[in-house]
Amino acid sequence: MRKHSIDTNVILRMPHRPGQLARIAKVIGDAGGLLGEIDVLHYGEENTVRDLILETADEAHTERVLADIRALEGVEILEVKDSVFEKHRGGKIKMTSRVEIKQVIDLRYVYTPGVARVCKAIEKDPHLAWDLTAIGNTVGIFTNGTRVLGLGNIGPLASLPVMEGKSVLYDKFANVSAVPMLIDTSDPDEFIETVMRLAKGFGGIHLEDIRIPDCFKIEDELKSRLKKPVMHDDQHGTATVALAAILNACKKNGVDPKASKLGQIGLGAAGSAIARLALAYGMRDVLVTDLSQEAVAAVVKDGARYATLEDLMRESDIVVATTGRPGLIRPDMVRKGHVILSLSNPEPEISPSEARKAGAVFAADGRTVNNALAYPGIFRGVLDTRSEKITKEMFVAVAETLARLAPPEDVVPNPLDLTVHAAVAEAVRDVARKQGLVGTAEV
Amino acid sequence: MRKHSIDTNVILRMPHRPGQLARIAKVIGDAGGLLGEIDVLHYGEENTVRDLILETADEAHTERVLADIRALEGVEILEVKDSVFEKHRGGKIKMTSRVEIKQVIDLRYVYTPGVARVCKAIEKDPHLAWDLTAIGNTVGIFTNGTRVLGLGNIGPLASLPVMEGKSVLYDKFANVSAVPMLIDTSDPDEFIETVMRLAKGFGGIHLEDIRIPDCFKIEDELKSRLKKPVMHDDQHGTATVALAAILNACKKNGVDPKASKLGQIGLGAAGSAIARLALAYGMRDVLVTDLSQEAVAAVVKDGARYATLEDLMRESDIVVATTGRPGLIRPDMVRKGHVILSLSNPEPEISPSEARKAGAVFAADGRTVNNALAYPGIFRGVLDTRSEKITKEMFVAVAETLARLAPPEDVVPNPLDLTVHAAVAEAVRDVARKQGLVGTAEV
Repeated sequence: MRKHSIDTNVILRMPHRPGQLARIAKVIGDAGGLLGEIDVLHYGEENTVRDLILETADEAHTERVLADIRALEGVEILEVKDSVFEKHRGGKIKMTSRVEIKQVIDLRYVYTPGVARVCKAIEKDPHLAWDLTAIGNTVGIFTNGTRVLGLGNIGPLASLPVMEGKSVLYDKFANVSAVPMLIDTSDPDEFIETVMRLAKGFGGIHLEDIRIPDCFKIEDELKSRLKKPVMHDDQHGTATVALAAILNACKKNGVDPKASKLGQIGLGAAGSAIARLALAYGMRDVLVTDLSQEAVAAVVKDGARYATLEDLMRESDIVVATTGRPGLIRPDMVRKGHVILSLSNPEPEISPSEARKAGAVFAADGRTVNNALAYPGIFRGVLDTRSEKITKEMFVAVAETLARLAPPEDVVPNPLDLTVHAAVAEAVRDVARKQGLVGTAEV
Repeated sequence: MRKHSIDTNVILRMPHRPGQLARIAKVIGDAGGLLGEIDVLHYGEENTVRDLILETADEAHTERVLADIRALEGVEILEVKDSVFEKHRGGKIKMTSRVEIKQVIDLRYVYTPGVARVCKAIEKDPHLAWDLTAIGNTVGIFTNGTRVLGLGNIGPLASLPVMEGKSVLYDKFANVSAVPMLIDTSDPDEFIETVMRLAKGFGGIHLEDIRIPDCFKIEDELKSRLKKPVMHDDQHGTATVALAAILNACKKNGVDPKASKLGQIGLGAAGSAIARLALAYGMRDVLVTDLSQEAVAAVVKDGARYATLEDLMRESDIVVATTGRPGLIRPDMVRKGHVILSLSNPEPEISPSEARKAGAVFAADGRTVNNALAYPGIFRGVLDTRSEKITKEMFVAVAETLARLAPPEDVVPNPLDLTVHAAVAEAVRDVARKQGLVGTAEV
């Protein structure tokens, strides 16, 4: 089936007579368009105005379908809006007050003169800032936009819609205040220096969409220099959700994950982190392959084993691919009983149906592994406990939690289920308590 | 009268009989405390629980009053809370989503895959970011905390409650999204470099609580390097509201401001800006004095005239003092017909009542000049028009607007009146249109 990736709101007026919507629906269907939601905006005596969502493959396709609708007698298109762009208009986030300002006394408390006493208290004991300012609930989402989604190095400004999207989910899923921080430099040292200068304002540092190998250097150095949680989401968020999917896929198919061989194809930010987290989880044999010898060496140093692509496919029980190369896994490489997660977006290394046809007992693609399942609850958990760091044990606990909460028909839960994020946060708090990390973060 | 600067919520249980509240009120009054709001939390058959606000001079005073209340038979103090600290708990601001996330389609629009098309559109045409992200409504409040209120150099973290307070008023007064940005450096060049690296994420740059002379250098350099509005509020916010107060004080007393001599005592951030704005407004003779020859020279270069304190007091019709030195203006320096604004907080250079007694036709202190009247509407106005800068003409127009909107009994309006901020924004938009600045800001 062709992909329908563009949604368009089409507002049209049609005669208020039987069969009119059917006529329009048929024209859309004949032109290869899909129909989404249909709302009635106005019922008139003679006409009806409806807002319908048209799904098409691309912009040219949209134009073709609209032309066909326009050609219908009695139907008038009143307005056409790109649904996605409409949703972004004016930005997706806003800094808002948590206090009311109605009376003079409100001003005196939150502004001068009252605020001076709070400042002095924090000057004397900086840790009071956790309670008396927003930092105990605030994460900075730092990016330089050097590796955004499948878009590559588009720079910080063009990456802002992604950062705002992350902030939206932080708010909605975990009540965390997350501030996009666009750093206009491609130099990792300048990036680190900038975060260090700004870190006082945040309870946690979320790194996002930074190219390799810079992302490793930046995360490592910030972790060592800051006594507050730092996490590169493209690595650990992805790895955590991938591990959840692996655990469930194994369970569904009677495979013991710890006794299994994992093959990780592609050692970018996500792939390296998946291999490392699998080792941390306790998988005894993790095979890895990548075109970059440097990337391989780094993960081998941490306990993985190098293999060629062919050997890896032959030896592994579970295969995870994060290469960005569609079609890399040929059906003849798949062996009976394989669990295969081909995670590259938008096109996987092998489609799940092909993989299953070739003998895999389980196969899924990148739509399954959604970071949004992990990062909001993870930061909620470390902020709640004021932990100085996010540990591998936390990622494993979160993966196990996500695996447990997946509905029977899926390997991971639905991110729209808010109880999932609450459970993730609780899993993190629980590990923080066990590891003695409660209250260890510094301001 | 002694100053009562500390508010305490005292929650107490008292017998539900006539005269009990009077008994408590008397004890508080006898101990020199003031009573604020009194709420009933619980009416019982025998007892009443009330939450009353006790105003005292300092913490020791609070303890004395509480001891006297505790000594009353039948009265039990259940809880004591510092009202200001309570209001700050958990922070005063939060980044929130402007979009709903209820269905899978919402995720697809604001997150992947939909967001990728918005990123690509901005990559192609960066100016689209004004509409398709929050930057067109977002101001960064940048500080290093080197000169905060009357507290001095307390550093960025301890200044955060002030920045959050500014952000609260931005939200409540002008619907601007304002993000505190704590820069952990005292070096002005590092400060400038950091703002330059971060500026892409903001439609406007608000500089706050930076010591002199760094604040001048930082503002000048950022203005010349960024094609977006930059404003150091301690200078221009204060100067704008001070000019409004001057205009109204003159009007009330039949003095023509343009034909008058202004004397500005103290050339810190606020004083220098007041002198400069008075010149921009059209005052022909602006006398200035300060202990720093450098500060004097900078303002003289811009058209002001140096005078000794004594000469300034003798020659000026309108005197503005911003020195931070209580009692600097002796009553014998005041001449008949003077308009005197002694603005230093918390103690003025001369109290308004003393100044009036000594012959001033009008006198006010720092409680009158509240920046909160200016900055929210100013940034609302430049963001709405996408102006690349905030001009002197805008500050003058805002001062005239504030002067016009002041109620008869005052020289400036009440900041809690939201129509004031709307009028300030409109005044700014109007100047932006006249000066051809609409749409000139760059991303």
